[in-house]
Parts: sequence; structure tokens; C-alpha cells
Amino acid sequence: MSSINLWGYTEKNFQKEKYPLNETLFALGNGYIGTRGSFEEKSDFGGHDGTFINGFYDYYDLSYGEKYNGYPDRSHAMLNVTNGKKIDIYINNERFSLEKGTIKDYVREIDFKKGILTRRVTWISEKGDEILYESERLVSFYEKHLMISKIRITPLNFDGDIRVVSYLEGDVKNITKENDPRIGVEFHGDELKVLECKIDNNRGEIISKTKSSNLGLICLMANNIKCDDQYDSFYEQNDKSVSHVFNIKAEKNKVIDLEKYIVYKSYKNELNDNLYSEVIGIVEEAFTKKYDFYKQKQKEFIDDFWFNTDILIDGDDATQQGIRFNMFHLLQSVGRDSLTNISAKGLTGEGYEGHYFWDTEIYILPFFLYTNPDIAKQLVNYRYNLLDSARKRAKEMQYKKGALYPWRTINGEECSAYFPAGTAQYHINGDIAYTVCKYVEATNDEEFMVEKGAEILIETARLWLEIGHFNSKGEFHICCVTGPDEYTAIVNNNVYTNLMAANNLHNAYKAAMLLQKKYPAQYKKLIDKINIEESEIDNFEVAANEMYVPYDEHRKLYPQDDSFFDKPKWDFIDSEDKHPLLMHYHPLNIYRAQVCKQADLILAEFLLGGYFDREQKIRDYDYYEKITTHDSSLSTCIFSIMANELGLYDKAYDYFGDSVRTDIDNLHNNTSAGIHTANMAGAWMSIIYGFAGMRVEDGALRFSPHLPNQWNSYRFRVSFQRRIIEVCVTKNNTEFKILHGEPIMIYNEEKSIKVV
Amino acid sequence: MSSINLWGYTEKNFQKEKYPLNETLFALGNGYIGTRGSFEEKSDFGGHDGTFINGFYDYYDLSYGEKYNGYPDRSHAMLNVTNGKKIDIYINNERFSLEKGTIKDYVREIDFKKGILTRRVTWISEKGDEILYESERLVSFYEKHLMISKIRITPLNFDGDIRVVSYLEGDVKNITKENDPRIGVEFHGDELKVLECKIDNNRGEIISKTKSSNLGLICLMANNIKCDDQYDSFYEQNDKSVSHVFNIKAEKNKVIDLEKYIVYKSYKNELNDNLYSEVIGIVEEAFTKKYDFYKQKQKEFIDDFWFNTDILIDGDDATQQGIRFNMFHLLQSVGRDSLTNISAKGLTGEGYEGHYFWDTEIYILPFFLYTNPDIAKQLVNYRYNLLDSARKRAKEMQYKKGALYPWRTINGEECSAYFPAGTAQYHINGDIAYTVCKYVEATNDEEFMVEKGAEILIETARLWLEIGHFNSKGEFHICCVTGPDEYTAIVNNNVYTNLMAANNLHNAYKAAMLLQKKYPAQYKKLIDKINIEESEIDNFEVAANEMYVPYDEHRKLYPQDDSFFDKPKWDFIDSEDKHPLLMHYHPLNIYRAQVCKQADLILAEFLLGGYFDREQKIRDYDYYEKITTHDSSLSTCIFSIMANELGLYDKAYDYFGDSVRTDIDNLHNNTSAGIHTANMAGAWMSIIYGFAGMRVEDGALRFSPHLPNQWNSYRFRVSFQRRIIEVCVTKNNTEFKILHGEPIMIYNEEKSIKVV
Repeated sequence: MSSINLWGYTEKNFQKEKYPLNETLFALGNGYIGTRGSFEEKSDFGGHDGTFINGFYDYYDLSYGEKYNGYPDRSHAMLNVTNGKKIDIYINNERFSLEKGTIKDYVREIDFKKGILTRRVTWISEKGDEILYESERLVSFYEKHLMISKIRITPLNFDGDIRVVSYLEGDVKNITKENDPRIGVEFHGDELKVLECKIDNNRGEIISKTKSSNLGLICLMANNIKCDDQYDSFYEQNDKSVSHVFNIKAEKNKVIDLEKYIVYKSYKNELNDNLYSEVIGIVEEAFTKKYDFYKQKQKEFIDDFWFNTDILIDGDDATQQGIRFNMFHLLQSVGRDSLTNISAKGLTGEGYEGHYFWDTEIYILPFFLYTNPDIAKQLVNYRYNLLDSARKRAKEMQYKKGALYPWRTINGEECSAYFPAGTAQYHINGDIAYTVCKYVEATNDEEFMVEKGAEILIETARLWLEIGHFNSKGEFHICCVTGPDEYTAIVNNNVYTNLMAANNLHNAYKAAMLLQKKYPAQYKKLIDKINIEESEIDNFEVAANEMYVPYDEHRKLYPQDDSFFDKPKWDFIDSEDKHPLLMHYHPLNIYRAQVCKQADLILAEFLLGGYFDREQKIRDYDYYEKITTHDSSLSTCIFSIMANELGLYDKAYDYFGDSVRTDIDNLHNNTSAGIHTANMAGAWMSIIYGFAGMRVEDGALRFSPHLPNQWNSYRFRVSFQRRIIEVCVTKNNTEFKILHGEPIMIYNEEKSIKVV
Repeated sequence: MSSINLWGYTEKNFQKEKYPLNETLFALGNGYIGTRGSFEEKSDFGGHDGTFINGFYDYYDLSYGEKYNGYPDRSHAMLNVTNGKKIDIYINNERFSLEKGTIKDYVREIDFKKGILTRRVTWISEKGDEILYESERLVSFYEKHLMISKIRITPLNFDGDIRVVSYLEGDVKNITKENDPRIGVEFHGDELKVLECKIDNNRGEIISKTKSSNLGLICLMANNIKCDDQYDSFYEQNDKSVSHVFNIKAEKNKVIDLEKYIVYKSYKNELNDNLYSEVIGIVEEAFTKKYDFYKQKQKEFIDDFWFNTDILIDGDDATQQGIRFNMFHLLQSVGRDSLTNISAKGLTGEGYEGHYFWDTEIYILPFFLYTNPDIAKQLVNYRYNLLDSARKRAKEMQYKKGALYPWRTINGEECSAYFPAGTAQYHINGDIAYTVCKYVEATNDEEFMVEKGAEILIETARLWLEIGHFNSKGEFHICCVTGPDEYTAIVNNNVYTNLMAANNLHNAYKAAMLLQKKYPAQYKKLIDKINIEESEIDNFEVAANEMYVPYDEHRKLYPQDDSFFDKPKWDFIDSEDKHPLLMHYHPLNIYRAQVCKQADLILAEFLLGGYFDREQKIRDYDYYEKITTHDSSLSTCIFSIMANELGLYDKAYDYFGDSVRTDIDNLHNNTSAGIHTANMAGAWMSIIYGFAGMRVEDGALRFSPHLPNQWNSYRFRVSFQRRIIEVCVTKNNTEFKILHGEPIMIYNEEKSIKVV
């Protein structure tokens, strides 16, 4: 029998050297609040006790040795906020801490079905007092502003003094940047200032304000103790911290329970009375309803999630655990309010500054779209809400029309300080447009297309006409861009970019035609709003049709861009121990060679598969695989998917194996700084698009399932056009079943079948 | 009769709005000390009173939003140093200043034959006291550490108190950066700290030290008063300043003379006794020999300079003045100690941080080489002295062999913070190699080639083998470089770069062969020192011979690089009022179009003219002229030269006209921040290479003179192979004459003639 926890992740013996890593793996979140899995009690094991609110950031100035027009003046980064988790315990004046004393039993577990983190430890103080310490923590999906900690202390061999101190600490800082953008940002530690710190109505309260982004945060704590012992309690406070102290005359074997309710609420500009009352209401309600109520609600929410989402893998427990771990963390990380999104490290760390990238559209959104389309809708709505910022950005870049989405952002402003791998990655416009269409196709949400989608498509399409041009042969060329592969920059006619641009232009034209015919009033409103002429819309279709795509007739290969094959191949032997290359080589040396950080042409062949024939894909795969380093975590999942499509099943499984347990096994050795959300969703894609061969083309669902040798069977569910379809793949056949909704025609191995 | 001062520049009426500009135009220098033409007396007309020591800089940190391997951590910039010029005068307690009172007569003049700056003003104080103020200033070419100010005050209508205060001020700052790299740097004002400020032996003395570059500066002042009036004198001082005060009981019409000797001496690390004594010796000698001695020596030095250098233009006084102004400022700006060079703004301003660029080799060095070859030798020696730094830089960039010269530097460290228009401009290696060969060709200084030149050539050649590659056809390609034109960046096979690289490789091979055959001992020493194999040297010649140069057979044009013609043409109408473009557009938008900041291919066609036939040059000129903005001051002179070569005489004169009076007429409206040294030398090139059609090819001097319609005749001298040759071009013929040295065979209009 396997010892792997299929519905959770367990630490069975305390490993202090893994404390920073486990802070990430045991992180909890609900898409609004995220908190690292640090212990309640003060512990110095080199970690970083962070709590984050999605979309809550401060600005910092960007500096450049030489600065040019259109460079962003400032960036913003997600802030570490008021610490509400901390609870210290003193046993006969000796502070409970795993740094000292003796640990007798220890188990920590995050439960994917319950959505809670528990810890249980029997600990003997240096003086010999033995206690059983048990804690539970949840960040509520039911009430997104609420986090609850529950601790229970049982004195096992003594009567004596137990002091419990429950803190709300406003003196928090981000990690200082260490010249590695994957870890943190150059903040000074004074970005979040405590405005007010007080005790009111048996609650602690800290109101903070950011230094320059004009965002505020109110954080409340209420503690509820339950014990049969005698105790007294009081508060202590200073400028930046409140603590609620309980002095207990403890008796052997009598339990002491403390429930701690922590409420976070961020706001813009000034805190008003209504908002304040609302926050008070949340904490009062929680205090009344108690922990068990929220624990039950948490389970109900998560049950629903798993019903839609779970993938059952028979015969490979490590993978089973890994994929659930990933899906659970994706749920914990994703903003569901259309004002926030899902960042590169979710809400588990400060790396990449909490920014949202194209990762959302191309890697993460498919997971939500085909399991939880309501969440997907909020992510697409987020991009619509950014459209004005994107129009502004296009103007800053001196374009006369259209919108240019930021390469990295939280609030819509471009935060990339290195344009060759930032602003030059115009493909983000195409990625967002692609996803708008995929969303509408998978949900039949034509209302979204009419109200918002068409506007995104048209405004992004306009930008291609700004940066591309028709050459003397009438071909549409796009110069000086960077594709997904950041090891090749500022090139002409990157195949991925050009094809995604063509797709964007064509779909913008189609959307305009749809509105014109079917929704003339909305069409009129839209063209007035964005001031567009019909000739411009016609031009979208011309540019799409005439889009130039370089091809090497001699090699029978697609070059990644016009000049890709003119460059020499990279010396992989010489650089074997120097990955990721960009941390070891000057960009020019990398750009100068045929070497890819990640899937680029191969990604185009996945996303726009219909454009390429199978033989072509095989040749290209063979060529590009040899020169791809996978230095980006966005790479192996795409190679896995395409390996499956091309029947390279061993490779497919190997690449999948690299990605499904990246974080849980800390394969990149940097999970302590946060999870890799795109890779997590990539693992889901590797199963659904890869092994199961799912594609959605022209509104139809297609499958071409393969069962890896390592598995006995697998089963998953897909939400599609208001249905839930269950797919079960075994050695001999594949079964499709409708769990919810009307029957549907799908394709299995190119054969049309009706699923009921 | 023309009112233009043919041997100087004169300000006849004080124009306070031109004060900052005139600080540049009236700047004095001797290649070591440079001082702006600010008044002696405190004046607030918005200028910047700067004094600079060539090669005297401090470091500052470079910051990047995203930083990668091989990016420089720090830059350095030339410092404004101790102010020794300042002298205040009080007339019956009213401070002499042109800010107030009445100016009756005024004339200021810089004399190109004497090398001194004079000012004469009759001034009436607000109370009605009238004085004649006369000053002379020189920065000595004879004693490079010495600057002298002489002032004479004559009370014209009163007896009374005159107080003269002569300062040495250590509290000096650079201009704060204003987001324009052409003006200044982001210093904090504390880069130069006063260590010691004292009065000793009737001299003021300030010793300063840089904050981080470990350079020191000692500055002494000694004042010598001569007057028949009664006076007393004393010193005042504070932490950062010394002043020598003279209280004079002045009598009407009796002159008061003050001579002020200021000595500057910079040093590395610590000041030692020897050095200190040396500096004391200089000031004591000056105090003994007196101003008139140095004035005479100044004239002798400058007479020699003009004998070698002057260009006589009959019929165009504005040009006559302009070209002399330029040549005089070039002499004032150039370092002649092999440890310093000539910066973009000479020693007249802080723009471009006092850095030395490729401007030296390709624009400025020809002027010195063919007029003052001893100075040229020191400039080439400077590059040899930088070779170790260049080898270090190559290693920093992860190259295994060779040397990479910094794009911009003072001390040899790369200071460019924007690699697409910095490090990517590898052509600087080729530019330096080109100049090494031109130097040896023009001087027959084979000893230099053996001792230093060959090492430069071979180490720079090695770098081309590091960044270039042989493709499958055996062609040598160089990818991801930026040519001279900074409006097109990170391209493959820039024609200029590839041809200069081929030239470098070929000459490195030739130099190695020369040493091997003629100087075997030195050859052995060299190959041991730099650890090179013969096969590597052979490979230089193979790469040179197989160098790929793109050519468009259809257009019959050379593209600037592989993909230049794939881009659309720039919209010149839309951007008419937005020059320089890089201050108005994001780099990507500029890179994306066919638009040139400056001569690039056209520069190659000038420097390596033998590679291209005349018809080709005509076609290319016609094409590139239309798309070149000349946003760089390095451009019009090259277009002028090539226009002359191609018989486009009107264009040639127009372009020349744009460049010969750029600074004296403030055509770029930024001369207040300093002169444009490369453009100044470009004007010389426009005459010598342009109108006179001089070329040096295969060791032979060739001319093809043309007399512009605007001129009656012109005459110039050229130093070549230990001769001075005078060339006089009139309407009907050209005369050549040897002024110094043996007869020589030259070519005039392709005909070989013997000059005696």
C-alpha cells in the first residue's frame, strides 16, 4: 500500500531545513487572501512569513542607466501585509518553539478535500513540561475576507502557567531583492504604513496604508478562548502591533482551545464608515458562527470544486497526489472578482512581484475554462477591465490606435523594465484575443462577446496594424518583436506572433461582422465608442489573410523567425552547468545562437494546430526539441502535449513527469519563493490536451486519448457549453458520459459520437 | 570688409542670455585642464562654472529594472573640480558684477593664435564709480598643470576702497542629470570631498579626494599683486575654501594688477611627498617666471600647432573662422599623455559624462594623425594601455579569448548601461584596429606595430571569431550586433561591422606574418604572452576572406544589414518636429523602420572605399540619404565627404555648412553643455577628405581636389610619413609642396606625381 497522501500533503517529521519550502507547500489561500504555511509561533528557520491580498500592491520607481520614451517610470509589487497568524505560547514561562526542547510526535498536513492545514505535535520543554499542540487553519472560500486559526493545547504531564499571546502585527516587510527577479523586489520596508493600531470592543485592529499606491487595508482580530481552567486576559499594544494575552492556570490533561478570527479587507483611497461597518460585521458574524461553521462551508465549496475538477489516476499515486496538489493550489491562487487575476507565484510568494503575465491566458485559463468556467469568465473580465489601461499604454508607445496589454502588471500599468523581453512581446495581445474566443466557444457566452469580447478583439487587432506593415508583395510582416522564447529577442516575423496576430485580426473581423448583423445597436455603440471605420475592420481580414509566415523550403522546417536558422547552434555541452542561461550569459550571446528557453514555434503548433500538418509537426518537434533548454517552467508541458499528439509517448510522459511534481518535489529548487502556477496548470494541460488529446476546434470537442503505460486508467471531467462531461480512459476503451446538461456530439479519434 | 574675427571669437556686447553658451565657446584647455569661460567674478546668468581634469572621474552605480550577466555594475563620470578662477572685486564695498551697474564698453575674445582669453569692460557701479576691468586667462600648453588669470583694475573717476578677493573653492558639484544623457549624470554632489584646505607659505591649497574612485587632486593658488597704491592683504578660509583678500586704497587712474597662478595635479591612491614637492615646484616656478613668460611659451606652442594644422580658406570668412575655432578646441581638448583621450565634449562640459567613444578613432584621430602625428600616437597608445581592461571585459562577456573594447569609458571599464546601443556595437573593436593600421601607415612607425599594434590587432580579431561563425556554406556571419546607426539595433550582418571585422582580421593576420618573418623574437614573446596558436591566426585570414556581406541583387543596393530592407520606411512627415527621434519614440518603433540616425553603410563606403565601385556608391548614397535623419552629429560630415567623392558638390557644401559652425553658431542648441568634438573634427575631414578628396590607400597619399564655388582657394598642410606637405587648391590647379622632409610620390586625380 502506498504511503502517499492522495488527498493532501503531509510532513511526518519536522524538517527544519525544509521550513522555507514548506511555507510554500502548506500555503493557504482563497484567491483573495493568501498566507504562507508558517507556524503560528515565532520560529527562526530562515523562512519568510508572508500574507498577501490579491491585487494589493505598492509602487516603486524603475531606474534605467539610459531611459527612453515609452519606458515605464514605475512598477508595482504585491505587498506582504499585516500578520494575523502569529500566536505564541509560554509553558511555565518557556516559549513553545520547535527551535528547542524535544519533539516527540509531529505531523503537519494540508487537506485538499477540507481546505485546511493542520498540525499536531507533542513537545517537551527544556524544563520537561510536555504538551500536545494541535492547530487548524483555514482561509475561507465562503467568506473571502476571513482567515481562522484554531489551536488546542493539552498539558500532558503538569499543572502550571500557560500563557497564550495572539498577535496582530503591522510591522511587516517584503523580502529584499537579491538581484534575482524571481524572488523579490527592491522595496525599502516602509511601503505599508500602520495608520491606526487599536483595541476596540474586544478586538484588535490595524489600519494600514500603502506609501504611494493609495490603497488601504483594514485587519481585525478576535480571539475566542475555551477552557475549563482559570484564566485572565488582557491586551497589549504598541504603534504597530496588538496582542491579546491569556494567562491560564492550566491543569494536566485539560484542553485549552483558542479560535482566532482574522479579517482582511483592502480598499482604495479613504476608508469610509460603510466599509468599516461591513468589516466589523464580518468578524462579528464569524465570532458568532464559530470555526466549525466555516469548516463545513469550506468543505462544501471544495466538494463542488472537486466534482467539476478532479482527475482520477489509477496506478500512479505520486502523479495523483501531484496533480491534485496543483489543482488545489490553482484554486487557492486565482482571483475571482474580475479585478484580480492569478500571479506567477499565486498568493504564496513575492517572486515576479505578484504580477500577472500571459501565463494566465495560455497556461492557466484553459484549466479553469474547462473545469470552472465561472472563474474563467472572471479572468477574461479582468482583461476587459484593463482595456482602458491598455489603450493608454498604446498611446504611451506612440501608437495612434488600439490597445497594448502590459507584459506584466497587477493594476493594468506596464511594469516591465526590460523591453526586449517585455514590451517587445506584443504576442500578449494575441494571447488575450485567442482566449477571449476560446472562452466564448467553450461557454456559448455570446453576451460576453457582444458586451466586451468584441471590443477587446478589435482594439488588440488594431495594434497589429500599427506595428506590422504590408510589404511590396502585399504580405503582412511584423518586425522587431520577441516571441514566447525569451532567448531570442527583437526579431522579424516570429511565427508564433504572426499566427497569433492573424488569429486575432481574423477574429476581430468576425466579431465585428457578428455584431453588425446580429446586434446592430451594440455594433453602432461600439464603433462610436472606439471611433473605428469599416475600412479599418476590412483591413483586419486582409492583414490576417496576407500574414507572412516564414518557411525554410530547404530544411522543410518553420524557422522560429526570419533569421533563426542564420544563427549557429548553441554550445550545450559548454553550458551544461549554467542554467538558466540568462543567469549566466549576457543576453546578446544567447540571442546570437539557436537556443530556446521554452516552447515557441511548438506552442504555435499546439494552439493553432490546424495550420500545420502532422509531418510538419514531427519535423519541427524533432528540430526544436534539441535546442530547447526548458529554462522556463512554461515549456515542458507544451512539449509533453505535442509529444502525445505525435505519438512520442515516452517523451510525453517524461516531460509530464518533470512538470506534475515541480513544486511538491521542489524540482527547480526555488519553490520556497512560491509555487509556479503556470506550470501547475501546464500539468493539467499535459493530461487533458496531452494524454487525452483534447482539442476544441470550430466549436467542437475532440479527443484522442492515450493511456500512459504507467497508469491503469484515468478519469476526468470537462465543462463545455453548459455540460459536464466525464471521460474515462482505460486500456481498452474510452467512455464519455454527460454528468450535467444535454447530450452533445463530440469527436473521438476523429469519429463523431454522441455523448449522453 | 568682413567683421569676422578670423583668428578668434569675439563677444562685442555682453549678452547675458548667451552666458551659458559662451561659457563653452570661451572655454580654455590644454588637454589636461579644461575650464569653462565663466567670468572671474560671481555671476548668476544661469551658467555652470566648471573646471575639469582629463581622466579625473568618480564612480556611480548603474541600476537596471532587470539586470543580466555582463551588465556593468557601475559607470564613472568626469568631475567638476576645485574652482580656481574666481576673483571678486568690491568698489567702495559694491561688488563688481555685470548683473547690475552700467556696462559702458565690453569686449571678450578668445585668441586662437595666442591661446588666451581676454575681457575688457568699462563698468559704472550703482553708486557711480567707474572702473576699467581687464582680464587675461590662459591654460598653459607649456606647463600642463598650470592655469593663470591676470586682472587689471583701473579706477577711472574716483579715489577709494577697492577690495580684491581671490578664491580657491573646493565646494563644487556636477550638474544634476535631467533625464538627458547628453547633459549630465546623476551625481549627488558629494563625489569630490575636500580633505585639506589650508594656507601655507602665502599660498592657498586644497586637497580633495573622490568618493569612490580613489583619485586625489591637489590644487594650489598663489596671487601676486602689483600696484602703486597702499594695500594690505590677508587670508580667509573655511573647510572648503580659501580666499586671499587685498584691501587697496585706490587712486584714480592708477592700475591695480593681480596675477593668479593656479596649479592642478591629480594623483592615484595617496599623495606622497615627492608629488607634493613637484606641485609646489610648479607654482613656485610660475610665481618666479611670471605670466608673460607663459604667455610667450603659449604662443610658441600654438604657432607650431598652426604651422602644421592651419587651413587657409580664401573667400569664406565664416568658414575660415569656424574651422579654426574647431581645430583650436580640438587641440584644447585632447589628452596627450597616453592615459587620457578626447571626450565627446572635450573638457568643456559634463555631457556624455566625459566619456571617450569610437568618435576618437573614426572622427577625431584622422585630424591629429595628418596634422600632429605625435598626438595621434598618444591616442593610439591610450588604446594599448586599455588592452588589459578590454581583455577583462571580453571575459566578463563570457568570451574565451580576445579583447572587447568598451563602448564608452574613461578608465577602460565599460560604462554603457544600454547594451543594444552600447555593448552590441562591437564595431568599436574594428574601429580601433582600423586606426592602428592607419596610424602605422601614416607614420611608418613599425616599432609601434611590433611593440603594441600587433597585440591590439590580434586580440581584437580574436573577438570576431568568438561572436561570428562560419555557416554551412563556409561564409562568416556575425549576428546580433548594432552598427554605427543606433536607430537599428541587434541585427545580423551589419555591412559596416562585417567589413570592419574583415579588415581587422586581415590586418591581424598581416601583422602576425610581419612579426613572424621580420621580428621572430618579438613574435615569440607575443604569442606566448597572449597564448595563441598558429591555426587561430590562420583562421583570421579565412574569416576575413569568407566574410559575408549581404547584397540586394534586385535593388542593386547594400542593405545596412540582413533584414534592413524587410522593414517599412519611416514616416518622416509625421515625425518632422520630433527630432532626435530617440527622445520621442520608443526604441522598438524606431528599430522597426528604415530610418538611420547617422551614416552607417555610407561610413563603410568612405572608410573602406576600395570595396565598392563608384556606381554602387552613387546608388547607395541616393538611397540612404533619404532615410537618414542626421540626429547624430557624427553624420553630416560623412555625407559631405561622400557627396564630394560622388560629384554632388552642392550637397557636399550644404552638409559641410551644417557641421563647420555647429558649435560657434550653436546650431544644435545645446553647445552650452559643451562642444561636439567629433563633429569639429568631422568638419576638418569634410575639407581634407571631402573637398580635397584625400585618401590614404596602400601606403600612398591620394588627392582629388575640388574647389567649392563659395571659395576662391584653400590651402592646408598634411603630415605624412615624416613629411609636411602643403596643398594649395585654386580655381585652375592644385599645388603640392614639401615643407619638411624628403620628396614623395603621391597621386593627384589618379595621376602619380612627385612632390618636392
